[in-house]
Amino acid sequence: MPADDSSLFGPDNLPYGVFSVEGQDPRVGVRLGEEVIDLARLFEDPRFDQPSLNAFMASGYEAWVEVRRQLQQRIADDALPVEARFPLSEVRLHMPMEVADYVDFYASEHHASNLGRLFRPDAEPLLPNWKHLPVGYHGRSGTVIVSGTDVRRPCGQRKAPDASEPTFGPSVRLDIEAELGFVVGTGSRLGEQVSTADFERHVFGCVLVNDWSARDIQAWEYVPLGPNLGKSFATSISAWVVPLLALTAARCELPGQDPTPLPYLREEQSWGLDIALEVAWNGQVVSRPPYRTMYWSPAQMLAHMTVNGASARTGDLYASGTISGPEKEQRGAFIELTWGGEEPVTVNGEERTFLVDGDEIAITASAPGANGSRIGFGEVRGTIQPAPCES
Amino acid sequence: MPADDSSLFGPDNLPYGVFSVEGQDPRVGVRLGEEVIDLARLFEDPRFDQPSLNAFMASGYEAWVEVRRQLQQRIADDALPVEARFPLSEVRLHMPMEVADYVDFYASEHHASNLGRLFRPDAEPLLPNWKHLPVGYHGRSGTVIVSGTDVRRPCGQRKAPDASEPTFGPSVRLDIEAELGFVVGTGSRLGEQVSTADFERHVFGCVLVNDWSARDIQAWEYVPLGPNLGKSFATSISAWVVPLLALTAARCELPGQDPTPLPYLREEQSWGLDIALEVAWNGQVVSRPPYRTMYWSPAQMLAHMTVNGASARTGDLYASGTISGPEKEQRGAFIELTWGGEEPVTVNGEERTFLVDGDEIAITASAPGANGSRIGFGEVRGTIQPAPCES
Repeated sequence: MPADDSSLFGPDNLPYGVFSVEGQDPRVGVRLGEEVIDLARLFEDPRFDQPSLNAFMASGYEAWVEVRRQLQQRIADDALPVEARFPLSEVRLHMPMEVADYVDFYASEHHASNLGRLFRPDAEPLLPNWKHLPVGYHGRSGTVIVSGTDVRRPCGQRKAPDASEPTFGPSVRLDIEAELGFVVGTGSRLGEQVSTADFERHVFGCVLVNDWSARDIQAWEYVPLGPNLGKSFATSISAWVVPLLALTAARCELPGQDPTPLPYLREEQSWGLDIALEVAWNGQVVSRPPYRTMYWSPAQMLAHMTVNGASARTGDLYASGTISGPEKEQRGAFIELTWGGEEPVTVNGEERTFLVDGDEIAITASAPGANGSRIGFGEVRGTIQPAPCES
Repeated sequence: MPADDSSLFGPDNLPYGVFSVEGQDPRVGVRLGEEVIDLARLFEDPRFDQPSLNAFMASGYEAWVEVRRQLQQRIADDALPVEARFPLSEVRLHMPMEVADYVDFYASEHHASNLGRLFRPDAEPLLPNWKHLPVGYHGRSGTVIVSGTDVRRPCGQRKAPDASEPTFGPSVRLDIEAELGFVVGTGSRLGEQVSTADFERHVFGCVLVNDWSARDIQAWEYVPLGPNLGKSFATSISAWVVPLLALTAARCELPGQDPTPLPYLREEQSWGLDIALEVAWNGQVVSRPPYRTMYWSPAQMLAHMTVNGASARTGDLYASGTISGPEKEQRGAFIELTWGGEEPVTVNGEERTFLVDGDEIAITASAPGANGSRIGFGEVRGTIQPAPCES
């Protein structure tokens, strides 16, 4: 993190989270600089006296705008009572929401092309559907965990390309995926389609996501129904949810879509986002994935996800898929960064490919905020613990 | 349903559900013959005064055994007070549980082989992993709906094999999948592996599932990450959850597994289940899928799902995948029964392939029960409503 970390959490940011202090129940707070503002105490509102953001998120777009306005006013008036302020260092952060459904997209053209080359070397890297729809799949919502939770190396089946049978053991190609996640605040009814224009009325905010991936398990299992055990052991998210209302200045054009998508996927003004991520491996930055290079926008993802009438719910989380830019040092997964393990990167003087036990990954991000500010995302951090099975 | 339907719901069955009567809150009940026993009133237990089975299921295996024992004793003693009994015809049935994660497997060799031939005609029908692990994927838990809820034909992208571009419109290959679903009562911790032997301590009971499938949407979207919009618009389940404790007499050997699965997938005594399903299309039975022909057992599915340390939660639902036997009239999906639409079946005198608006599908099932009885599953029924988009 940069030295002036607290400046990334000024009054133009105000991310929401769930915190607790010793001996008290978890409740909703907002980060301001190096402090947490206790919204339950500040507003005496039962929506904030909850162990998740779900109740507040469900109260809808107008409520999100109004609470943010009141908060910014209180800050400007220097009217935050001391009993509603806690040093960040003295609180514990929890999962910010109860996750309803979790969907993971695949919206980076660079990532999808790289993975295509690695997983299917004899075929076209992008499959025929990729530029027509945001490809995605459902992941396991029950194993979405908050930043700081350790990640145990998974065991499972994997088959070496030259082996005739699979073997069981710890994943030996444990990887990360640096992603941005979108949290649904207001759901939709079964049978209702959410238009791209309604994105900001449904999506409350964004988190950083590390979609830990066991590439050896994934490669063996994923045909024909997609990834399952290779991903379902853990998906980490940042503890702070940056409200979409803080990201207005970060909106940008998409890189360009050719062919023009079908009408239900078109946007009047695109929801590209100029968010700069950093991936630190044991403290050393090894990649800087640029979110602005993503092919599909989050408004398009939501419109696609509901175009068949599927309902969305408060607490739904959908993630972008790995964010990879065109340059090697912009790749958000180690399988790409090290090209399947063939081109190691140097981490603190050692040649490294996939994760070893004890490795710590921290993903951070920042974006343009209102009034010329820059706003930060809370980090998503995790450390690899040894597998419970023998190799 | 057979004429002696009520005999399938005798004291050796006792499926659980959530019901309400006019003007009162939904609560937990048990079906006995053509009546519903109100457990909240019978036992004055707050676990039953709930709009879902989750609280009772979470109380664990010993509680499931004890409540069933007490119920059977009260029935034997003819000690069910009249105020705790409601005619089935006078109650409304609701979703029996809050679904946590929903996973759909693919455990019928006949189904997987048939689909392989239809979707990938130029390749081996079974992919190399299929006989080594129960292939499955996560579905959308937010669109699991209870029997009797109408299903709206989904809109989406589909591409004809000879077309260069996809088009948008209503699915024209809307299909069913007749499946059995398993409801997790007691979860597991993150990092814990559930052994096949612990299956019955974690799984509370079974439901019938109709995994509605838009084959045209699915065929275009499903590579490389699996089915998504082609399935996520609706998954119907029966309102009654048959407890696993009622299915002891239905246990049977699996048809045989070759190669022998890896140790974590082996069972001391297999959890094959001799359950006979019937699929009725507008009242006419068109298929009789035999669950006993399934290749993978539900205990193996649960062991696989958690072998990577993924936690299970109360309310998790995992389904078997389409149940298809070796014979044509045993196929649990119309894409198989009509061989991709090329071999229509006759329904009430008409040649039919996929579903048309107004079609009603009802899936029922029965199995051997204790004491020589036969036990029934509550039906899963749904009617197709017209798409909200134009073709």
